[in-house]
Amino acid sequence: MTEDKTTVKDVTFLDIPKIIDPRGNLAVIEQQTIPFSHKRVYYLFDVPEGAKRGGHSHIEQSEVLIALNGSFTVIVDDGEDKKRVTLDNPLKGLLIPNGIWRELEDFTKGSVCLVLASDIFEEADYIREYTDFKSSKS
Amino acid sequence: MTEDKTTVKDVTFLDIPKIIDPRGNLAVIEQQTIPFSHKRVYYLFDVPEGAKRGGHSHIEQSEVLIALNGSFTVIVDDGEDKKRVTLDNPLKGLLIPNGIWRELEDFTKGSVCLVLASDIFEEADYIREYTDFKSSKS
Repeated sequence: MTEDKTTVKDVTFLDIPKIIDPRGNLAVIEQQTIPFSHKRVYYLFDVPEGAKRGGHSHIEQSEVLIALNGSFTVIVDDGEDKKRVTLDNPLKGLLIPNGIWRELEDFTKGSVCLVLASDIFEEADYIREYTDFKSSKS
Repeated sequence: MTEDKTTVKDVTFLDIPKIIDPRGNLAVIEQQTIPFSHKRVYYLFDVPEGAKRGGHSHIEQSEVLIALNGSFTVIVDDGEDKKRVTLDNPLKGLLIPNGIWRELEDFTKGSVCLVLASDIFEEADYIREYTDFKSSKS
């Protein structure tokens, strides 16, 4: 399947358009900002400092992660290579295509992670065991 | 036009579903969570403490505002009545239908306001002068 061929090189930063205003910053995500039409928005908040999250991949779904406040680290893994990325800028979205294992850690106090997902929640789209993920990539 | 008949009573709180997890909170917005299919996501961040924002209404668009971090006050106004609402909970969305003048103030440091809008950006949908807004409601 083509979706199994993604690698950490496909994990890329997207610029979120900003409207400059002395009263504070405003960032806008419309259809053209990200490479899919998102069907679901979710956000992580009140994450205990230093907590770890994630540890899964998606069979079909792609996601964009944005640090709206604070910072955290994303470890992406394609079964062969790994990459560590720190998210700390509300104007940078991290595109994680399907077929990439991800873990989140090093949350700072008050950090907020906004996620736009390409589809509604489907448990069947999740791979939650790393050994199953490795098999899916081989 | 029916859209001119909205009042501050139509400005209501929506519960955002939460997935409880000791590693931190996760809140999800899918199609059934809010009364419209959102076409645009935007967020305010790095707002100077005490700054004021807003001062406009929408002819057709509805919006849901959520405080993802910190807090701020929303003043909604239907041309006759006003209501002040404090947003400080990532699990409460404030539904503001079309035809409601809104202003945002009292932002705390680090506060983030997420907005889901029912349509893409259209300058023609904004009323930016209060006198024009009053005329639209009479």
